[in-house]
Amino acid sequence: MHTLLILHGPNLNLLGQREPAIYGSQTLDQINASLTRMGDELRVNILARQSNSEGQLIDILHDARTWAAGIVFNPAGYTHTSVALRDAIAAIGLPTVEVHLSNIFKREGFRQKSLIAPVCIGTISGFGAHSYELGLQALVKYLERPGEG
Amino acid sequence: MHTLLILHGPNLNLLGQREPAIYGSQTLDQINASLTRMGDELRVNILARQSNSEGQLIDILHDARTWAAGIVFNPAGYTHTSVALRDAIAAIGLPTVEVHLSNIFKREGFRQKSLIAPVCIGTISGFGAHSYELGLQALVKYLERPGEG
Amino acid sequence: MHTLLILHGPNLNLLGQREPAIYGSQTLDQINASLTRMGDELRVNILARQSNSEGQLIDILHDARTWAAGIVFNPAGYTHTSVALRDAIAAIGLPTVEVHLSNIFKREGFRQKSLIAPVCIGTISGFGAHSYELGLQALVKYLERPGEG
Amino acid sequence: MHTLLILHGPNLNLLGQREPAIYGSQTLDQINASLTRMGDELRVNILARQSNSEGQLIDILHDARTWAAGIVFNPAGYTHTSVALRDAIAAIGLPTVEVHLSNIFKREGFRQKSLIAPVCIGTISGFGAHSYELGLQALVKYLERPGEG
Amino acid sequence: MHTLLILHGPNLNLLGQREPAIYGSQTLDQINASLTRMGDELRVNILARQSNSEGQLIDILHDARTWAAGIVFNPAGYTHTSVALRDAIAAIGLPTVEVHLSNIFKREGFRQKSLIAPVCIGTISGFGAHSYELGLQALVKYLERPGEG
Amino acid sequence: MHTLLILHGPNLNLLGQREPAIYGSQTLDQINASLTRMGDELRVNILARQSNSEGQLIDILHDARTWAAGIVFNPAGYTHTSVALRDAIAAIGLPTVEVHLSNIFKREGFRQKSLIAPVCIGTISGFGAHSYELGLQALVKYLERPGEG
Amino acid sequence: MHTLLILHGPNLNLLGQREPAIYGSQTLDQINASLTRMGDELRVNILARQSNSEGQLIDILHDARTWAAGIVFNPAGYTHTSVALRDAIAAIGLPTVEVHLSNIFKREGFRQKSLIAPVCIGTISGFGAHSYELGLQALVKYLERPGEG
Amino acid sequence: MHTLLILHGPNLNLLGQREPAIYGSQTLDQINASLTRMGDELRVNILARQSNSEGQLIDILHDARTWAAGIVFNPAGYTHTSVALRDAIAAIGLPTVEVHLSNIFKREGFRQKSLIAPVCIGTISGFGAHSYELGLQALVKYLERPGEG
Amino acid sequence: MHTLLILHGPNLNLLGQREPAIYGSQTLDQINASLTRMGDELRVNILARQSNSEGQLIDILHDARTWAAGIVFNPAGYTHTSVALRDAIAAIGLPTVEVHLSNIFKREGFRQKSLIAPVCIGTISGFGAHSYELGLQALVKYLERPGEG
Amino acid sequence: MHTLLILHGPNLNLLGQREPAIYGSQTLDQINASLTRMGDELRVNILARQSNSEGQLIDILHDARTWAAGIVFNPAGYTHTSVALRDAIAAIGLPTVEVHLSNIFKREGFRQKSLIAPVCIGTISGFGAHSYELGLQALVKYLERPGEG
Amino acid sequence: MHTLLILHGPNLNLLGQREPAIYGSQTLDQINASLTRMGDELRVNILARQSNSEGQLIDILHDARTWAAGIVFNPAGYTHTSVALRDAIAAIGLPTVEVHLSNIFKREGFRQKSLIAPVCIGTISGFGAHSYELGLQALVKYLERPGEG
Amino acid sequence: MHTLLILHGPNLNLLGQREPAIYGSQTLDQINASLTRMGDELRVNILARQSNSEGQLIDILHDARTWAAGIVFNPAGYTHTSVALRDAIAAIGLPTVEVHLSNIFKREGFRQKSLIAPVCIGTISGFGAHSYELGLQALVKYLERPGEG
Repeated sequence: MHTLLILHGPNLNLLGQREPAIYGSQTLDQINASLTRMGDELRVNILARQSNSEGQLIDILHDARTWAAGIVFNPAGYTHTSVALRDAIAAIGLPTVEVHLSNIFKREGFRQKSLIAPVCIGTISGFGAHSYELGLQALVKYLERPGEG
Repeated sequence: MHTLLILHGPNLNLLGQREPAIYGSQTLDQINASLTRMGDELRVNILARQSNSEGQLIDILHDARTWAAGIVFNPAGYTHTSVALRDAIAAIGLPTVEVHLSNIFKREGFRQKSLIAPVCIGTISGFGAHSYELGLQALVKYLERPGEG
Repeated sequence: MHTLLILHGPNLNLLGQREPAIYGSQTLDQINASLTRMGDELRVNILARQSNSEGQLIDILHDARTWAAGIVFNPAGYTHTSVALRDAIAAIGLPTVEVHLSNIFKREGFRQKSLIAPVCIGTISGFGAHSYELGLQALVKYLERPGEG
Repeated sequence: MHTLLILHGPNLNLLGQREPAIYGSQTLDQINASLTRMGDELRVNILARQSNSEGQLIDILHDARTWAAGIVFNPAGYTHTSVALRDAIAAIGLPTVEVHLSNIFKREGFRQKSLIAPVCIGTISGFGAHSYELGLQALVKYLERPGEG
Repeated sequence: MHTLLILHGPNLNLLGQREPAIYGSQTLDQINASLTRMGDELRVNILARQSNSEGQLIDILHDARTWAAGIVFNPAGYTHTSVALRDAIAAIGLPTVEVHLSNIFKREGFRQKSLIAPVCIGTISGFGAHSYELGLQALVKYLERPGEG
Repeated sequence: MHTLLILHGPNLNLLGQREPAIYGSQTLDQINASLTRMGDELRVNILARQSNSEGQLIDILHDARTWAAGIVFNPAGYTHTSVALRDAIAAIGLPTVEVHLSNIFKREGFRQKSLIAPVCIGTISGFGAHSYELGLQALVKYLERPGEG
Repeated sequence: MHTLLILHGPNLNLLGQREPAIYGSQTLDQINASLTRMGDELRVNILARQSNSEGQLIDILHDARTWAAGIVFNPAGYTHTSVALRDAIAAIGLPTVEVHLSNIFKREGFRQKSLIAPVCIGTISGFGAHSYELGLQALVKYLERPGEG
Repeated sequence: MHTLLILHGPNLNLLGQREPAIYGSQTLDQINASLTRMGDELRVNILARQSNSEGQLIDILHDARTWAAGIVFNPAGYTHTSVALRDAIAAIGLPTVEVHLSNIFKREGFRQKSLIAPVCIGTISGFGAHSYELGLQALVKYLERPGEG
Repeated sequence: MHTLLILHGPNLNLLGQREPAIYGSQTLDQINASLTRMGDELRVNILARQSNSEGQLIDILHDARTWAAGIVFNPAGYTHTSVALRDAIAAIGLPTVEVHLSNIFKREGFRQKSLIAPVCIGTISGFGAHSYELGLQALVKYLERPGEG
Repeated sequence: MHTLLILHGPNLNLLGQREPAIYGSQTLDQINASLTRMGDELRVNILARQSNSEGQLIDILHDARTWAAGIVFNPAGYTHTSVALRDAIAAIGLPTVEVHLSNIFKREGFRQKSLIAPVCIGTISGFGAHSYELGLQALVKYLERPGEG
Repeated sequence: MHTLLILHGPNLNLLGQREPAIYGSQTLDQINASLTRMGDELRVNILARQSNSEGQLIDILHDARTWAAGIVFNPAGYTHTSVALRDAIAAIGLPTVEVHLSNIFKREGFRQKSLIAPVCIGTISGFGAHSYELGLQALVKYLERPGEG
Repeated sequence: MHTLLILHGPNLNLLGQREPAIYGSQTLDQINASLTRMGDELRVNILARQSNSEGQLIDILHDARTWAAGIVFNPAGYTHTSVALRDAIAAIGLPTVEVHLSNIFKREGFRQKSLIAPVCIGTISGFGAHSYELGLQALVKYLERPGEG
């Protein structure tokens, strides 16, 4: 039975309190609880982490090499600026799905380019908290049949 | 019970025969059949259409105004070049989910910009035929609770 | 007595139903009827056509070579992307006036460049359905005194 | 009965003497006289002003706040370079129609961008002196039915 | 004995009538007849098609998979704007030679970039109707010795 | 009977030894011999020259003014960087055909722009050594009927 | 006791009447009066000037060389377009503080570049009429201890 | 009585020791002490923090939600690169004033764009340590009369 | 005997007092006197004018149509920003030589592009006050033998 | 005897395990051991540090001011994005050599620009672990004869 | 008595025979003879050289260090592409005047940027063969009073 | 025992005489002598060549195919402009190390891009004459263990 890392980037600890018109009204705990329930259905363990620090996010990714089978990652504000996080994902070699709460293509120009996407299996953006659930499904499916993607 | 349009853009009629390393080995009929099955589970009707013509795709979108509750759209090669398709989606006002088989962020620079995405709820790319299934789920969820996204 | 082509590009068949805040509340039939009345005053015949297909628009332009004295053209979404329509206008050699319902300079950056304008006599944009009437007047005046423009 | 300002930007005092192949053979006085006649038909007063100075053009626009109902403005060479004129139009809040004698889209690249257009109702370019007449009609129509544009 | 598709893009049906200074005075029928004669010498069958529609051109390319050994393609105005045609050529996997009547490098900036060229064996531009004949020769030679190119 | 210059730019002396996957396996002598044979058929004299030096290539072009009727030129690495060679071709006024062994549109971005092409009749690229033969044919045809191109 | 120039650029004479949501509700006279009061506290004389003309603003700056110890300058619409004003400030060599009522970084792209800022001590933008007061304080402090900035 | 956060970004702990020609000779402690004195006069409490870590700066901003009424922030090197800090300021919704010691418009091109400014009330740059004092005043004034800015 | 206009743009009235390291130590009067002496030798009348106002410079250029045979123009700060001055020179049709005191190619990027140069015979920059003398010689020579340039 | 800091940026703790085709098979410990041995020969002390956090790297650099004579720094993924690290190096004023394992010029476009290089003595990239050894030699040589570089 | 180098770049040996509409009808020998006569008047020796080779031009510049007091240089096609020639001029440290026969600002975009100009005293362009004479005068004047430029 | 080519590009023959602040005070002979001594220690033969001509540098590289095991190359001014030299290095297939005396990242923008680097093992820049010695070491190490880089 696989263990999967759900990794939340900067400012996502404020979910539910922060600009609900853009990011929705669920808190991070609620999202993690809902993903855990879905993990039970999909027969995978879920381990969720959040950090506002680029360096800690890299540390978490490195650590996941030893226990995770794949990653659902919302890099938030680091999506557009972090080569180091991109390198971390490439370095650990775990299948990773990038997710975003908001549709980044509807927002400022600088949000429309992802440095992270090219080292991921794929990207899901715009469905609020549901983006995580879709990402989890996508990852589980990929782990079952990696050659099909 | 909602009826949803699954709309396939140019060259997707060749799926399963065309560059399987990039686009997977399922045919379009297989994908549509699988979406219909999933639609049964999700209690929505599925109506699938494909065209290689930008104009016909616009005609289909216009027609869907009268019978569809939402759209899962893979605009394929028109993703990056068609203002007219973007205008069509904005004009009909139906919730639309953009899907892509391949991870467009891993490919040529000109594929990394979508003219369609800003008029959609969100985008799912990189999961092969599974992108459609995720898109269908995302759309159904959105129709149930549009205020949550 | 001249016959003039009024050519409407993609999505304009939805006029009056589509985003009225941007495009106004008149339908295409109402606009065509009003142009026909104005044509009677100006002593020209009006023949109106619409298509969502770039290829059909080219076919209509080619066909017009044999019977039209000039064209009022709203290329809509193809304004910014169609070299083929530009080439068609250059090829048939008929005087053409470009019109737009909305002020394209107030909208997204990609709408602020017209591939069609450089092969037209001139451009009129921003006056809603009235843009067509102004375009018709401009064309008739040009046909009376082409050397004056 | 409305009074409308016809405002001519730099170098337009030379009209009729300057590069007639591009700008036509009518003088500014002839254009103003013709607009006055058209104003009589449309039941509006016409007041025409010209200046080569950006600052004076701003002064004229400011002054027009107290007596004009709208403006037909040919900003000529300042079209592409004057943020201050743009701010002046936005500040006075009068409906303004931008006109150009030549088709600016056929000319040098730096002429294809207008800083003025985004604060105007719309733009008319390429019809020689007739551009002013079309602009006057467009403005009068707008003043009759501002909600229709 | 190979059958080869000669595919003509938008506006080429007007050849011989359209801007002869740029495109030459031969009609499309004359060019096709001359290519058929050359095909006889080179011992290949020639089948020529033209369409103004991007979608139909894609349909023709798809269809050619079943009977053609290679393609000589003049994408005309779609050269610079059609990702969908590029994808079609890549999808069918037939060796394709891109030809242009005029020297696209002498013309407007937007004509100097080809989206089609990177999926073709090579490109020939600037020799009028002779470009097609050179393209046919190049294709036949390639089919004889594909490893030599 | 015309004498034609075949001019080979930098590094082409290594042909057959250099990156055969890109440039083919024929040596420059073999290519020249084959062009001489083709010249016999086409009733033109062939004179081939190669240099790695931009200055010498200019000298050769200048010299050709006195004896050549036209030029087939592969500028190789100078294609993208030499204004001086472009000026030389314009200065001597001889009809010139640009040829490339590889399809420059499939390679690095900096190879996709030719400073030489705009002063040539046309360009042929991507057919290996056969590009030269096609170029020779194109030139001979042009010299027979210059008005047809 | 120092005399300082408060210089207001184009359209600022309309303050209080113009787009109050962006520029605030105080008139220019009120702002000048408030700066004069603050000048009394800071023991400097205040002399305020406004012009809509780039040339007059330059004249005023030149004139200030003989009597002013420093300048608080709101170049308004000329901020982004005037090399001549920049040269004037550099030429007269007086310490200058640039101020803006609105936060120029929140507005259109063309407002986010200042040609004036590089020849000023510093810039204050976004605090409405208070920007002037902060600018005056900054200038007085600088004049007391120029080496500290 | 309000409590305000003074937040210092990376490398500012070295103030007074680092490139005094650019950044001045006061230490961070001296600046904080001076701001505390000014806070006493303005009847606000001052709490100063510094960190070299983007993640810690985000943590501090998040924490400030519960006790601060506003922020004076010098993001230093993160000004130009941190989307995550921008998102943090937007997320907590506290009024923020951006300050810079040096005039960023006089320095390297990459320093002339602020990702932080668009989510702040306004920006003050170029006045050395005095920039903080002006920023504190601006913030206090804004808190007294937020509608005036 | 020709009369020539020497036209000095913004800030040049300060010559000799302004940044002598860049612009030299001669005053404008000294330069004009020296040009008058040189005019005597070359048998042309010299009439010198200066203005800081773009509009006045245009007025002076218009006025010169009736009495001047040519112009030596230093547009200074307007070189890089004034389409209106460019249009004025094109409109009056007098041969014009552009001069600059400093070598504009050694300075800031925005100074390295001239909007004025394309409507002038030629440009002389970098020789201090001597640039004017060289410009005067160039103009007189051109007037003697316009076909030689 | 000098002490030198060897500073390793993000993800370098994974060396030997991460993408060996790009980064080589030595671990960070092996590299540090080898540098220590080389330090013995060169008569300098080596102190090696690694962090994945931008903020910690800045802290380490600040700390090194008190004990290090120079730095060999591999900023890895922060090379292309960190203004804060650049500022830290400039602030501490220690001679720094930038090193990279891979040849950054052969990789993605965004890796070809270094924000760090302009504040370093020089850069060494492409030689795998040997880049560090060359960097150490370069630094020691520089410390012996700083005026020679 | 000074000796000055007149250096002519690529293709200038063809002067008088090459595109006389752009470059004039004088041959290089005639220009050199005329410069020699002018040199006699100005009491300087003239030594003229021409080469089509970038390398030889560099050699000539290096050699001139030992005997020339200054250089008049027309770099022709190398103006826009040669960093090596720029470095050569900087290396030898002789005062150099850049001259061009045609007005490079009226021509193609790639001719409007000079790599050579920033290492020269100044530039003269657009006056045909007279550009050399003006350049010679400018250089002689500079050598007499270098501090005045 | 390997023989290695040390290749010096344009203007490097002037080393020691040219801009010593940038390039150091050693002459090319001194550098070559020092490299020869180092070669003795490293048990490789050194053969040094210099040319100012791009063509000759290509000839030398071609020639080296027959006797050299690797190359240390300072392309100087051709670094940024020569596709032909890049092609030569790729064609001969010898391992090449790029070296620069100055830190090219501290200089003008056009010097910060190397066309040569992507076909080299790696690059060393900024260490004056020592760059060559480091380059020689790097090359020898690479030849011993090519798989390690």
